Amino acid sequence: MAKYAFHDDYSEGAHPNIIDALTRTNFTQQSGYGEDEFSNSARKAIRTLIGADEAGVFFTPGGTGANLLSIACYLRSHQSIIAAESAHIVGKEAAAVEATGHKVLTAPAVDGKLTPENIQSVFDENLLFAYQTKIKMVFVSNTTEIGTVYTKSELAAVAAVCKKLGLLLLLDGARLGSALTSPKNDMTLKDIYDLTDIFWIGGTKNGALLGEAVVIKDPSLGADFPHHMKQRGALLAKGRVIGIQFATLFQNDLFFRLARDANSMAAELSSCLRKMGFRLWANTESNQVFPILSQQLVDVLQNDFEFFIWDCLQDGSLVVRLVTSWATEPSQVKKFCSVVEDWVKYHGN
Amino acid sequence: MAKYAFHDDYSEGAHPNIIDALTRTNFTQQSGYGEDEFSNSARKAIRTLIGADEAGVFFTPGGTGANLLSIACYLRSHQSIIAAESAHIVGKEAAAVEATGHKVLTAPAVDGKLTPENIQSVFDENLLFAYQTKIKMVFVSNTTEIGTVYTKSELAAVAAVCKKLGLLLLLDGARLGSALTSPKNDMTLKDIYDLTDIFWIGGTKNGALLGEAVVIKDPSLGADFPHHMKQRGALLAKGRVIGIQFATLFQNDLFFRLARDANSMAAELSSCLRKMGFRLWANTESNQVFPILSQQLVDVLQNDFEFFIWDCLQDGSLVVRLVTSWATEPSQVKKFCSVVEDWVKYHGN
Amino acid sequence: MAKYAFHDDYSEGAHPNIIDALTRTNFTQQSGYGEDEFSNSARKAIRTLIGADEAGVFFTPGGTGANLLSIACYLRSHQSIIAAESAHIVGKEAAAVEATGHKVLTAPAVDGKLTPENIQSVFDENLLFAYQTKIKMVFVSNTTEIGTVYTKSELAAVAAVCKKLGLLLLLDGARLGSALTSPKNDMTLKDIYDLTDIFWIGGTKNGALLGEAVVIKDPSLGADFPHHMKQRGALLAKGRVIGIQFATLFQNDLFFRLARDANSMAAELSSCLRKMGFRLWANTESNQVFPILSQQLVDVLQNDFEFFIWDCLQDGSLVVRLVTSWATEPSQVKKFCSVVEDWVKYHGN
Amino acid sequence: MAKYAFHDDYSEGAHPNIIDALTRTNFTQQSGYGEDEFSNSARKAIRTLIGADEAGVFFTPGGTGANLLSIACYLRSHQSIIAAESAHIVGKEAAAVEATGHKVLTAPAVDGKLTPENIQSVFDENLLFAYQTKIKMVFVSNTTEIGTVYTKSELAAVAAVCKKLGLLLLLDGARLGSALTSPKNDMTLKDIYDLTDIFWIGGTKNGALLGEAVVIKDPSLGADFPHHMKQRGALLAKGRVIGIQFATLFQNDLFFRLARDANSMAAELSSCLRKMGFRLWANTESNQVFPILSQQLVDVLQNDFEFFIWDCLQDGSLVVRLVTSWATEPSQVKKFCSVVEDWVKYHGN
Repeated sequence: MAKYAFHDDYSEGAHPNIIDALTRTNFTQQSGYGEDEFSNSARKAIRTLIGADEAGVFFTPGGTGANLLSIACYLRSHQSIIAAESAHIVGKEAAAVEATGHKVLTAPAVDGKLTPENIQSVFDENLLFAYQTKIKMVFVSNTTEIGTVYTKSELAAVAAVCKKLGLLLLLDGARLGSALTSPKNDMTLKDIYDLTDIFWIGGTKNGALLGEAVVIKDPSLGADFPHHMKQRGALLAKGRVIGIQFATLFQNDLFFRLARDANSMAAELSSCLRKMGFRLWANTESNQVFPILSQQLVDVLQNDFEFFIWDCLQDGSLVVRLVTSWATEPSQVKKFCSVVEDWVKYHGN
Repeated sequence: MAKYAFHDDYSEGAHPNIIDALTRTNFTQQSGYGEDEFSNSARKAIRTLIGADEAGVFFTPGGTGANLLSIACYLRSHQSIIAAESAHIVGKEAAAVEATGHKVLTAPAVDGKLTPENIQSVFDENLLFAYQTKIKMVFVSNTTEIGTVYTKSELAAVAAVCKKLGLLLLLDGARLGSALTSPKNDMTLKDIYDLTDIFWIGGTKNGALLGEAVVIKDPSLGADFPHHMKQRGALLAKGRVIGIQFATLFQNDLFFRLARDANSMAAELSSCLRKMGFRLWANTESNQVFPILSQQLVDVLQNDFEFFIWDCLQDGSLVVRLVTSWATEPSQVKKFCSVVEDWVKYHGN
Repeated sequence: MAKYAFHDDYSEGAHPNIIDALTRTNFTQQSGYGEDEFSNSARKAIRTLIGADEAGVFFTPGGTGANLLSIACYLRSHQSIIAAESAHIVGKEAAAVEATGHKVLTAPAVDGKLTPENIQSVFDENLLFAYQTKIKMVFVSNTTEIGTVYTKSELAAVAAVCKKLGLLLLLDGARLGSALTSPKNDMTLKDIYDLTDIFWIGGTKNGALLGEAVVIKDPSLGADFPHHMKQRGALLAKGRVIGIQFATLFQNDLFFRLARDANSMAAELSSCLRKMGFRLWANTESNQVFPILSQQLVDVLQNDFEFFIWDCLQDGSLVVRLVTSWATEPSQVKKFCSVVEDWVKYHGN
Repeated sequence: MAKYAFHDDYSEGAHPNIIDALTRTNFTQQSGYGEDEFSNSARKAIRTLIGADEAGVFFTPGGTGANLLSIACYLRSHQSIIAAESAHIVGKEAAAVEATGHKVLTAPAVDGKLTPENIQSVFDENLLFAYQTKIKMVFVSNTTEIGTVYTKSELAAVAAVCKKLGLLLLLDGARLGSALTSPKNDMTLKDIYDLTDIFWIGGTKNGALLGEAVVIKDPSLGADFPHHMKQRGALLAKGRVIGIQFATLFQNDLFFRLARDANSMAAELSSCLRKMGFRLWANTESNQVFPILSQQLVDVLQNDFEFFIWDCLQDGSLVVRLVTSWATEPSQVKKFCSVVEDWVKYHGN
């Protein structure tokens, strides 16, 4: 790609520490299927952070798999889940949840987040008639699909309504690093563990070549989880490949440092755009920036940059999504800002 | 692991060329979900080898996923498949095929291989009663689960009976490199493509960190295959990770050279064991050796080596599985043989 | 039930002609699984009405089964359907479609009906991102879930957009008798067949003890449909039980006469309520009436009648659903009207 | 059918008492979906027989549905079941269990019955490798598919091994009436309930037009079972239709009287055939007789009778299946015997 991409947080390979670790450990013989010493060491690091020695920790290749496994391992065949309308599993994962036989009910999101009221409301609506569907789980993402971040009190309120209604709580943490290092954040990884029944920590979007770490509270479900993984094709023979990456990420806080870097690049993009008078379609709380730009400015920017056109507003202006990552080059952020600045000088925003 | 493992062909990481390629390309920005230039270059290399520009080529993280996807993308909900009793999908993939809703019927294997007669026979038995199941696909592995290799005439005969009965033919090539470089082999990758409807080329067991390449003849199915992959959690955001590995494997015949090396290590093990009078439970045609050893000898060997006890025979002797790979150290093969030799000297076989 | 029920159109048993036919044919020996002469005779009657000798006609015990079978027999595992938000399969069939692995996307309904614009719009929205879901079928009900009826031009427009987009069209005819005898209707059963790919004719709600007749255009799918039925537990050993009922219903137009009777009872209820100044929540076009009544009037009516409270409006008034059938007693309709009339006299509406 | 059929136990309609009951109750209004007073009365009768007021009792249209529901309601997505090779669900229900996502492992049957040894053995074989499948349930049929009957000690031994291994026990009672009235039987319906986790009582093959009664011990599963039924299309709107039939069957022991009649007709057939020197392929313990006859005799019998050719033995003789029912005419049994007798007189057996 000749142009520089703010398209996503998976445009590059892995953080050099990970490449080094893969290289360094390459010829060591290891047990297969996630029972290697690197996976065990990554497990230990995660368990220390969440303060739970008994938690199940498992490594899947990708996020869609992490989600479908987290749902399918818990639910009985007639049970359904609630997710925000804007949730990734609703419209952008090729109906993966439904392919495991479960319905996904949607609730309106507020700033990309589920609220206790909206959960309660969908729950109640599904009790009006005799044979609707039995809801058993709630799905949230942190950061959300629009880059917003749950506060502890927000997530605790969701957890409380789940508990009241007998629902399990699943948290999709594809960008959990970004969430936990957001200026908006007031939670630790331990809080996430304490407030949910199952969650996963995204590696792919935070410095790994691939891999997500699923954390399960219930020990009996955890015992069978590798079987679920194998059954869905998500258990790598060389489980070491993901294990060594998470072991590296959780060494010396690399995971959090990378996420913080990504967030600060986004903050810089967001700040310069706001300074120049552009509105944002969503608050910049993590590594995604959603400025509202004119078609003309977008055309100019597309000469040098790749990014996603997220939506087209009624007045013809465009919502653009800019994503930063641990690998984002500060010089490209500056260049982006200066292209915008030049354009604004002559055309206004 | 202090002991040296002949346990499997996925005990080490990747061939150094692959680690180099990952390192070298790490910071290049690439499109996600398998549309990167490395995946495209790997596709081109495979299409050249099979002489089919229009073939669909897709990269999945692992073999169980490759199998369940190959089956689920083709079959309608009421259709079933036939596989050998000894097939991996029958007993060692956590009922992954059934989890997609399809029954796996079994036929007896001859030397680990399906025969036209056995396929015909299972097909016929399922027409005796009115509501048995509609068979639509046949599953073979090459090499087979016991390391044997299909000849061209054997595979052609299977393909012919499939065509006659209106069945699709799927070939699991987890160890296809090993098969195509076996002394027993008389096929090319193009033959495999010509004789099957869908097959996959194993990377995990032949030098890659992870990854299998699924090759689909039918262009309309191929067009939807990425959707199937996404739906089953098998589409990596950083598809480049598998792409660059297959691009590397199919550069300068690396794929075949690695497999040939694995086979020759197995041949050496097999040859020394036979020379010392040990019987084999299956012919050594690829990278798996199945000697029949006494419990005492096994005990001695286990001081220095890891390997799988495959079966226990009625006379108390054990079938042991020794697997070699591109990474097998010749010195360890020699050491294994000399431990056996020493033992035989004092105890006989 | 001491009170008289306008609760549903399945509160009574079967039309006496059906009970007679069951009694009369009870001891004749017949082949099982739908290959009896009664089923064949019912098939013949339906094929004559639709003018298609080659159509597949199959009898399922109930409507949810008819829907899930019609969808699962056609779709590949990654394909989805569009239905109106108010469609029965969306919220009132226990997620039966999702349990077969397929997602149900919803479009807003206009008078309970899907429009070409809304279908197109959902289709388009699912092409915006790379891995949403592949839509392959559209689901409509006639009558709709709120008792409205498709005109020929409305259904033809839906069929046309389906054809343009490569989508199949499924029509749920749980109340198709009611639809085709509605004053609003301008279609024949043949029109329904011509405009759809698959549809079903409801027996349960129009005089049968149980049973729906699924009609399939595509002969190759039809050939396998009994296998799908058996697989989903929908193929009765004594298929004769449904066969004789449909044979009876399509003798001397009984099916249409019963539906017309149901409609005229609803028209009478609707007319008397409107005369007394009550608003309707939906037009009365078939056998369902949705008056908007005060809580007090509802309390009074519930002393003598059973009916469903469909919704509660913001002003506190209630939407009530009154359903009539072939079995509705005219005297009870009169009584209902007179209770309302008495109430209005003293309280106004 | 001009010929008289011993083809199956579902060739006729229903016992006259049932037709009478349907006729008599036809115009009573009843609640839908199994909450009618007839279903409740049938529930009460069954609960009295099994001595368990808290047991869940549910009515499904057919046996395949009863089986798939009993399995799918209990198992998590990665769990499998064991059944006898000869079990109906293995080869004659169109892979209905697999369509719900669960593997069916087979064990050899002894006289059509599972033994503790064979269950243990399949269980053990599935622990040899790491990712086989998690077995969670055992499936038995009583009578078995070849008409044999479990004794109490046999079923208790199966139940004991299930308990030991943490497996649930499901009993398919399509012909449970026949089993419990067999001369071989020493169990009551209460014993069946006590020894299993879930079982069902066949109505279709014992005097009903359709319907099976599923009995569930676990109250929490029972609470959700109607949802499972609705989801699989097995919940009839007019649940009364099955309810009244079971209420009738369990009035004055009709259920057992009908089964006893069927058995005694089979005993007569069996006895006359054995007297004339014919061998049986399976013991006649219930309402199925499996004589071994020559092709010539079969040809002669087929002039007057319909029956199923079950198998062809190596010496060319045929295994024929004769099924009797509550509706079998004694005169036809006599006629069958006399045709055989005439033939034997001239040709020997």
